Amino acid sequence: MNTHTELELNGVSICDTFAEAFTTVGTRVIVTAMTESWVRTAAAEVSGYATSVIACDAEAGIERFLSPDESPDGRPGASLMFFAFSRSALEKAVANRVGQCILTCPSTACYSGYSDSNKEKNIALGNQLRFFGDGFQVSKKWDNRRLWRIPVMDGEFICEDQVGSFKGVAGGNLIICATDQKNGLLATEAAVSAMQKVEHTILPFPGGIVRSGSKVGSRYPKLKASTNDAYCPTIRAQTNSDLPLGTGCVYEIVIDGVSFDPVQQAMKAGLYTICQQPGILQVTAGNYGGKLGKHHFHLRDLID
Amino acid sequence: MNTHTELELNGVSICDTFAEAFTTVGTRVIVTAMTESWVRTAAAEVSGYATSVIACDAEAGIERFLSPDESPDGRPGASLMFFAFSRSALEKAVANRVGQCILTCPSTACYSGYSDSNKEKNIALGNQLRFFGDGFQVSKKWDNRRLWRIPVMDGEFICEDQVGSFKGVAGGNLIICATDQKNGLLATEAAVSAMQKVEHTILPFPGGIVRSGSKVGSRYPKLKASTNDAYCPTIRAQTNSDLPLGTGCVYEIVIDGVSFDPVQQAMKAGLYTICQQPGILQVTAGNYGGKLGKHHFHLRDLID
Amino acid sequence: MNTHTELELNGVSICDTFAEAFTTVGTRVIVTAMTESWVRTAAAEVSGYATSVIACDAEAGIERFLSPDESPDGRPGASLMFFAFSRSALEKAVANRVGQCILTCPSTACYSGYSDSNKEKNIALGNQLRFFGDGFQVSKKWDNRRLWRIPVMDGEFICEDQVGSFKGVAGGNLIICATDQKNGLLATEAAVSAMQKVEHTILPFPGGIVRSGSKVGSRYPKLKASTNDAYCPTIRAQTNSDLPLGTGCVYEIVIDGVSFDPVQQAMKAGLYTICQQPGILQVTAGNYGGKLGKHHFHLRDLID
Amino acid sequence: MNTHTELELNGVSICDTFAEAFTTVGTRVIVTAMTESWVRTAAAEVSGYATSVIACDAEAGIERFLSPDESPDGRPGASLMFFAFSRSALEKAVANRVGQCILTCPSTACYSGYSDSNKEKNIALGNQLRFFGDGFQVSKKWDNRRLWRIPVMDGEFICEDQVGSFKGVAGGNLIICATDQKNGLLATEAAVSAMQKVEHTILPFPGGIVRSGSKVGSRYPKLKASTNDAYCPTIRAQTNSDLPLGTGCVYEIVIDGVSFDPVQQAMKAGLYTICQQPGILQVTAGNYGGKLGKHHFHLRDLID
Repeated sequence: MNTHTELELNGVSICDTFAEAFTTVGTRVIVTAMTESWVRTAAAEVSGYATSVIACDAEAGIERFLSPDESPDGRPGASLMFFAFSRSALEKAVANRVGQCILTCPSTACYSGYSDSNKEKNIALGNQLRFFGDGFQVSKKWDNRRLWRIPVMDGEFICEDQVGSFKGVAGGNLIICATDQKNGLLATEAAVSAMQKVEHTILPFPGGIVRSGSKVGSRYPKLKASTNDAYCPTIRAQTNSDLPLGTGCVYEIVIDGVSFDPVQQAMKAGLYTICQQPGILQVTAGNYGGKLGKHHFHLRDLID
Repeated sequence: MNTHTELELNGVSICDTFAEAFTTVGTRVIVTAMTESWVRTAAAEVSGYATSVIACDAEAGIERFLSPDESPDGRPGASLMFFAFSRSALEKAVANRVGQCILTCPSTACYSGYSDSNKEKNIALGNQLRFFGDGFQVSKKWDNRRLWRIPVMDGEFICEDQVGSFKGVAGGNLIICATDQKNGLLATEAAVSAMQKVEHTILPFPGGIVRSGSKVGSRYPKLKASTNDAYCPTIRAQTNSDLPLGTGCVYEIVIDGVSFDPVQQAMKAGLYTICQQPGILQVTAGNYGGKLGKHHFHLRDLID
Repeated sequence: MNTHTELELNGVSICDTFAEAFTTVGTRVIVTAMTESWVRTAAAEVSGYATSVIACDAEAGIERFLSPDESPDGRPGASLMFFAFSRSALEKAVANRVGQCILTCPSTACYSGYSDSNKEKNIALGNQLRFFGDGFQVSKKWDNRRLWRIPVMDGEFICEDQVGSFKGVAGGNLIICATDQKNGLLATEAAVSAMQKVEHTILPFPGGIVRSGSKVGSRYPKLKASTNDAYCPTIRAQTNSDLPLGTGCVYEIVIDGVSFDPVQQAMKAGLYTICQQPGILQVTAGNYGGKLGKHHFHLRDLID
Repeated sequence: MNTHTELELNGVSICDTFAEAFTTVGTRVIVTAMTESWVRTAAAEVSGYATSVIACDAEAGIERFLSPDESPDGRPGASLMFFAFSRSALEKAVANRVGQCILTCPSTACYSGYSDSNKEKNIALGNQLRFFGDGFQVSKKWDNRRLWRIPVMDGEFICEDQVGSFKGVAGGNLIICATDQKNGLLATEAAVSAMQKVEHTILPFPGGIVRSGSKVGSRYPKLKASTNDAYCPTIRAQTNSDLPLGTGCVYEIVIDGVSFDPVQQAMKAGLYTICQQPGILQVTAGNYGGKLGKHHFHLRDLID
């Protein structure tokens, strides 16, 4: 049994522990298209297969959709965020993803969603993709920014030369213990829809939720991580379970963000929403003892 | 100017040429979940960032959605197809994609959608992912198939041990020349929705459409492919254009499938739909002279 | 306690009773538009607020979506069905709904989806709406049919002069008793998605499901119908309940169709799907003793 | 030719005229459900077939969706607005719509989204629907509000006894003249998505857009309104057209709102978005000379 439990919110026990998150490199890319429907198609494609940097080239997600009056070119758009271990890894992933999923996608254009006075932090995007133009590409000044006009079959792909990068936070998390799968999933879905309204954050997993929580290491030498058996309800009799009595299902929400504050704000919105839902027994968070990750989000601090 | 034009369909000129497609290795995976909405989430995530094997680990798409009475476990499902250069590349891509995007996704299960008496053609899926269970996984017979029950936080991830593979066809295509982007996109969208009804095929590009047609090679030695300038309307004055007069926009639809016939059937459904739309000047297809790809789809054969 | 129970399907008890449905007048209308997204918008608007003829002017629903190669004008479309007590009531409802929701909707056109040699059964649709053209409308022959071209701000609204009507069946139903709301809703959603694949039928209630089953009459003289207290789990102690022990939630699916067979086929697809779902205790059906409705769907006949 | 034109915005001519809107009675209703998907289903059903009070019982639309932390019961929700000629007409329409489309819809609850110290302005909602409970309904205090718990088959329908009403504004509008249908529709869709972000307003027509603009009267004595031939491009040669040269398509956006300011704010957001789009020739507005409607929205005032 988990021994931290001292806190409570709306009758739900909150473990007095913390989520341990890591410093990472992130960027924000704005994609626009002729219609909202094409924005959604492009955004889903480019941010797909990007749940965890453990085995994907990046963690990615849709921060929010932009109405035409919010977007750089007066068309419907979406703000996307991408995170990786290093700026070079991020540059490689973003350029390849945009090249395969946005350059190819009807009517789209691509802009930087983050700028920084320090140009050394920039990621070359259009600057790499322009070569696809085979010499027919032309560059265009836009205030103090540079856009590339790359000829494609439906006209031109407009792509910004550089996109800014920032030191972000990856791995903020909440772990929700519920009576059963249906209560657990509905409560976690409710939390996700509250958290998605917090800007400067994304939830990289499918629909914002992870059900395959992992621990470091496994009994198979080659495997670096394996199922977090202490949180698996079906094997509680066979292992040293951390689950409160009556737990039939556990979900985790992982949050990446631009900095500590928005990640904390998203965790708070999620925690308060979860604790309003039926069938929730406990909320806790995942950490590695605090030695690996620089950012510690104490659940205690989320409760007013 | 393109010189092949001799054919016509509903007033649209059809080039008397062929689409050249390649032999590839494919597999079909069935994903099911507690609700249709979670099926869609899982299917979009696992088939994202999978437009072309040139720079993605696989080409993937949703073949169709399955109602509960069509799916292996009586839940809503989707039939997905994945294609790669070799069976080993396909196995690596599918196992990693399912591990990152389905194993992680609430309530999902994963089954083979293709079986073959020749077990040597099988791809190890559950057989690889089971190790995530850290010894707590158990195998389960299902007729003559083997499923793995892998403990996860929301219960168990059911995943079939092996999924069959087949020699498929990748790169069937249609190239649509339209008066402008809006006519071109609407006509191509109409073709896509007709083609999506043809089973045993997928359209791997975003929304089924490519706008960045490429030619082999470029003036930059390092770049293997570059924009197909002969089909780019904005630079027709600067290059040796293949576009009919008045062409303002060109789109391509790429089709992968289980075999020659369904790909040809999809091309035919697309061609007839395109030629019913306004603002279409010509339909052609892409090939490499016929020496590279084994499968040749002559547009002439699509016209009754 | 319900005393009919004798039958069983996949471990679920099936009451040996029947659904009693009524003869009604129906029509099928095809709406097309420039894009799938506008088809969905128009179809949802025109079939909204149409759950039951008790208090709506019609019962309506989307039969299926049509790809461009299936639709009358090569554009994306939807097949809609409308039902009412009499042909005159149906004519009034359909003309007003199409006038308010389709005539007004960008890029749409409207065609008959049902024709009959007996012209006396026709409903005047374009024949009524044409007057909106204020004399500028023109009629157009289309094989042996007549279309009206009515000038509107975005061009012309094409609307068929007459749409056929037929004697249909309204009120086929299944009543599902589940352990709790979440099991009940998921099982019923699964049944709905299986039933929506059966052509010539619609499910007029929101998302295909009714949760407010009613009985004839009430203790308030003015009220013709009231909650079916025998099927309300929260008041089982206060009333003469028909619910099996352990029932926490009940849902009903109502089916309208072109004739007896497709309604029966939809009920069968639904019944088999429901009985594959967890947490289902009993399936029964609603009738009025068999004296009011001409069509009797015996659950016994649905089981092979 | 329209003679007002003096203004210009981003190169688009803006007629120096005004939109004439009417005083109306409105209400706001909050619907919540177990999942976002059921909220969408209920909201679409209850606000369907509600484009214009000329021939519908009300004008209705979705103001915005509510995340669980914004909704009255911690579940996903939607804020809906309804407008009618009089409070009695509104009460009749809302009670019947909620009774047919929300009471019937799985897992939903219904709350007032507008309250007023003046109880005489209230509309009886739960107060009418409670009788469906056939005496089994119970009332429940909620701060100074009253809720009804009405037994239904999936549990209880929670419905607030009274919902507030307000004197609203109906008929704010913008009329967009474009070169062709595709440019016109894309520009108008872009404006709609910008306008939908303005709270306290709804756009009652399908997808927010009207293509069948009407004038008062017709050559058919029985018809009170008919197509606004002066704005129909296909008949410009046969009538006294108000369209600028080159106009191929015209769309109108109609806005209803709680008061003058939000309607004006929505018109402004729409106007600025439209004038960023390609292929727009002129924006004007509809009025009746200013004598019928109390609220005049001068386009001149929308331009900074």
